[in-house]
Amino acid sequence: MKRINIGLLGLGNIGSGTYRVIELNRSHIEETSGLDLRIKRILEIDTERDRGFTVAPGVFTQDPETIFNDPEIDIVIELLGGVEPATSFIVSALNAGKSVVTANKAAVAENYELLTETAARNGVELRYEASVGGGIPLIGAITEHLCANEFTELLGILNGTTNYILTKMDEEGREYDDVLKEAQELGFAEADPTADVEGHDVANKLSILMSLVFGKRVRPGEIPTKGISSITKDDIAEAASDGCVIKLLASAFRTEDGVECFVQPTWLNKNHPLADVKNEFNALFIKGNAVDDLMFYGKGAGPFPTASAVLGDVIAIAK
Amino acid sequence: MKRINIGLLGLGNIGSGTYRVIELNRSHIEETSGLDLRIKRILEIDTERDRGFTVAPGVFTQDPETIFNDPEIDIVIELLGGVEPATSFIVSALNAGKSVVTANKAAVAENYELLTETAARNGVELRYEASVGGGIPLIGAITEHLCANEFTELLGILNGTTNYILTKMDEEGREYDDVLKEAQELGFAEADPTADVEGHDVANKLSILMSLVFGKRVRPGEIPTKGISSITKDDIAEAASDGCVIKLLASAFRTEDGVECFVQPTWLNKNHPLADVKNEFNALFIKGNAVDDLMFYGKGAGPFPTASAVLGDVIAIAK
Repeated sequence: MKRINIGLLGLGNIGSGTYRVIELNRSHIEETSGLDLRIKRILEIDTERDRGFTVAPGVFTQDPETIFNDPEIDIVIELLGGVEPATSFIVSALNAGKSVVTANKAAVAENYELLTETAARNGVELRYEASVGGGIPLIGAITEHLCANEFTELLGILNGTTNYILTKMDEEGREYDDVLKEAQELGFAEADPTADVEGHDVANKLSILMSLVFGKRVRPGEIPTKGISSITKDDIAEAASDGCVIKLLASAFRTEDGVECFVQPTWLNKNHPLADVKNEFNALFIKGNAVDDLMFYGKGAGPFPTASAVLGDVIAIAK
Repeated sequence: MKRINIGLLGLGNIGSGTYRVIELNRSHIEETSGLDLRIKRILEIDTERDRGFTVAPGVFTQDPETIFNDPEIDIVIELLGGVEPATSFIVSALNAGKSVVTANKAAVAENYELLTETAARNGVELRYEASVGGGIPLIGAITEHLCANEFTELLGILNGTTNYILTKMDEEGREYDDVLKEAQELGFAEADPTADVEGHDVANKLSILMSLVFGKRVRPGEIPTKGISSITKDDIAEAASDGCVIKLLASAFRTEDGVECFVQPTWLNKNHPLADVKNEFNALFIKGNAVDDLMFYGKGAGPFPTASAVLGDVIAIAK
């Protein structure tokens, strides 16, 4: 059994999910990978919150340097979210010779070159499977198993909140504001839903996919982005009368001049595989010149699905 | 640039597809992986057939030993199909210190222990992504990116021929014999369709998945298997009147006593993500205790999609 000491940055919803999945599946992970995953230190201010499990005394720290400077820590998992201080922490960890796993689409999208180059310069790994599509193993599939393909097209439903809202508007004939309010009450939408409903979250994810799928760096702010807040139930009814549904899509196409990409509400024929992706589910439809049409479907968010991707990355690095 | 010399066993449809994808995407593969893939030798009796490309003189051989004994060959790709002589050839290649990539579900399902143990004993790799789901990167996802999950359920549409027949019977209200005949004329079904329509092909694939998903070895012959040849258009109409479609499913469930598995035509509610998988497409629906519901969808057969998976394996080994 090989022991892997982990430094965890952030014990919020996703951090707690990761902690719990390690414990829940400890014997399975030990048996199948020969790894004993141990969370040695956790950077977290809120040490008192009831998370349904007990963290041993001395594991919490308020000083990230105690993680970066600990020679016993092999891998740092960053689950703080947001561009800063997450980016600085990831850079510090990489410079300290730690491999880093993150679910942070904002930091990876905004600082892609800085982060990948810092990892390469230090001879360590940076993995971010959870940053796009949550638990769906998109990034691994694209960068590893499908790497013999040139990709020509990508269409993604990459935000669960907006897909939930559009699904309810469609199925129940309700207006945007009404469904948004319900989604907020149910915890499917944030109190400030701007990043989701205006498409910025999807633009971050599309920015990452552009680098991986098409080898083209596009900053999130450079992607033409339109959200769903102006969609009405009449728009949805009009699409339906034409055999279509409206989905908030991340789109990218190879053209004669390069690759175009954008985020916008899109009419999708009801026969398209993405048209049946409902509620909080995410999916990526992608076309390669060898593999042809592929679709990946699953939960794009949530503590356990995200933990699945984070731990897949941790185990890949540890092996 | 790292040169990888390949010995190819079989230049039929899949072998020719693999040859063509290497040439088509040569510059892409060189750029993204730094690998120069060269097919150095091809075991093939039919050297005269017009395949749309020219094989350099001296590449063809009728003696597999010239491949196994060539110290310059790094990787052997086995695309002969069938249990023998493919199994013996794979074993010989592994014993000669070559890593092997195969698309051969029959050989891997029938001789799983022999093949995996021979690879391990020789310290080389055996990869078989293309053996289940063709181009869909199922095996990589399950064994690598999703390895932190305990899986509880698996449902697969893993045979394009039968899914094509059932789709046409459903959409056009036609009888089995009529659609089978058309599928044979269009090249979607073999002249002897037994392995497909009686479910044996699916049983081979389910046998492989049982080892990878549930860690349980079940030989194909031990899997209760029923095909689609007795399904009538009345059966399909009856299912439809109950809001269901009939699909030939590979199914496996974790129960209190272990894991149950079987292959049979199954009523599937039209709301299930697999219900919309039509024609020759394949899909795997799988549930993990962290990631929850996932579905992978794509082309489960064909020269180019299969080549995508074969070359993904080759590149993974070469790296």
